[in-house]
Amino acid sequence: MKGKVSLAVVRRLPQYYRYLKELENAGITKSSSRDMGEAMGLTASQIRQDLNCFGSFGQQGYGYNVSSLIKEIAYILAIEEDRPFIVIGAGQLGGAISASNNLKGRGFKLVGIFDNDSNIVGKKIGNTVVRHIEELADFCKAEKPKMAVLAVPQGSATDAAKLLSSLGVQAFWNFSGHIDAVCEGAVFENIHLEDSLMTLSYRMEE
Amino acid sequence: MKGKVSLAVVRRLPQYYRYLKELENAGITKSSSRDMGEAMGLTASQIRQDLNCFGSFGQQGYGYNVSSLIKEIAYILAIEEDRPFIVIGAGQLGGAISASNNLKGRGFKLVGIFDNDSNIVGKKIGNTVVRHIEELADFCKAEKPKMAVLAVPQGSATDAAKLLSSLGVQAFWNFSGHIDAVCEGAVFENIHLEDSLMTLSYRMEE
Repeated sequence: MKGKVSLAVVRRLPQYYRYLKELENAGITKSSSRDMGEAMGLTASQIRQDLNCFGSFGQQGYGYNVSSLIKEIAYILAIEEDRPFIVIGAGQLGGAISASNNLKGRGFKLVGIFDNDSNIVGKKIGNTVVRHIEELADFCKAEKPKMAVLAVPQGSATDAAKLLSSLGVQAFWNFSGHIDAVCEGAVFENIHLEDSLMTLSYRMEE
Repeated sequence: MKGKVSLAVVRRLPQYYRYLKELENAGITKSSSRDMGEAMGLTASQIRQDLNCFGSFGQQGYGYNVSSLIKEIAYILAIEEDRPFIVIGAGQLGGAISASNNLKGRGFKLVGIFDNDSNIVGKKIGNTVVRHIEELADFCKAEKPKMAVLAVPQGSATDAAKLLSSLGVQAFWNFSGHIDAVCEGAVFENIHLEDSLMTLSYRMEE
């Protein structure tokens, strides 16, 4: 069933997960598609439909058990166990991502940071020492990370993606702009932060 | 007409803008909804429909003039003239945003960076000196920025938003998590970077 679910539905799951985590942190143990919808700006039927793509959750008239639904969504998203990832580029953005508390407890574990700037190599970000990019190949052979964050200058992104793909990386969280390479079997989440800033500009004028 | 366009359509405009800019940079002067759709993973009719919400662009059988369409979308998004914005929080993420080249030429102009950490205040990010947050009120009275980036710790986000709203800020690009405040008339773009990382996790398993 998983294979058939549209990406638009998949993209809403992390929102549900995040909201349910907020409820859990506030000590709230049950919720309903109506309550969730109101808080999140979605309709109740949208939420029910989305969750129905993955199975049967909640009970008519009772709603959802918050902590159970969190576990179910974590299972669907495959974030139950910490998945090792590496960060390429230890500039400000790469550093911010490496140091982010938001990624902890979301199924991801930072195992390596790489840069080619000798002023940065050797420094610590959180508990992780920045390594020289020349160590990347050996590191990947030993640790076999499947996921990488690309936080390099735009001009270096394509080469970095090709290299990482050849070293077994299959998933890219890409903050470095357009990648002009075919990396067979790899999946990309391309983040274009400025897009939402442009949306904000539009909404200001409305 | 603007007021009636759905946010889903508005959110695609920056993608079109970004892609058209790539074409322009590559020296390509015309495109079609079919070519654009293929490159962007959308259908041609989706693109035509989206653009039709705002007016009539392009010519049947010829397609779109790239530079004209860029100008039209910039006008729709209200990013033709540089709009001043401030950044609250000069940690790694705030620093990365302040230093980003991607925001230049997208209708935004950084006019101030504020932090409460005396180790950071006084330092330069790009050409902008980080000011103490105590200077914020006077700065806002003088410069009247309407847009702010929130890059503060989660626990400080609500207070920061309330303060900024009271000082006339109307649009928030929020990287600091959930804002638990009613800021009348303000618009928020809440960025949850970890959402896309969770989506990536799902897609790896497919």
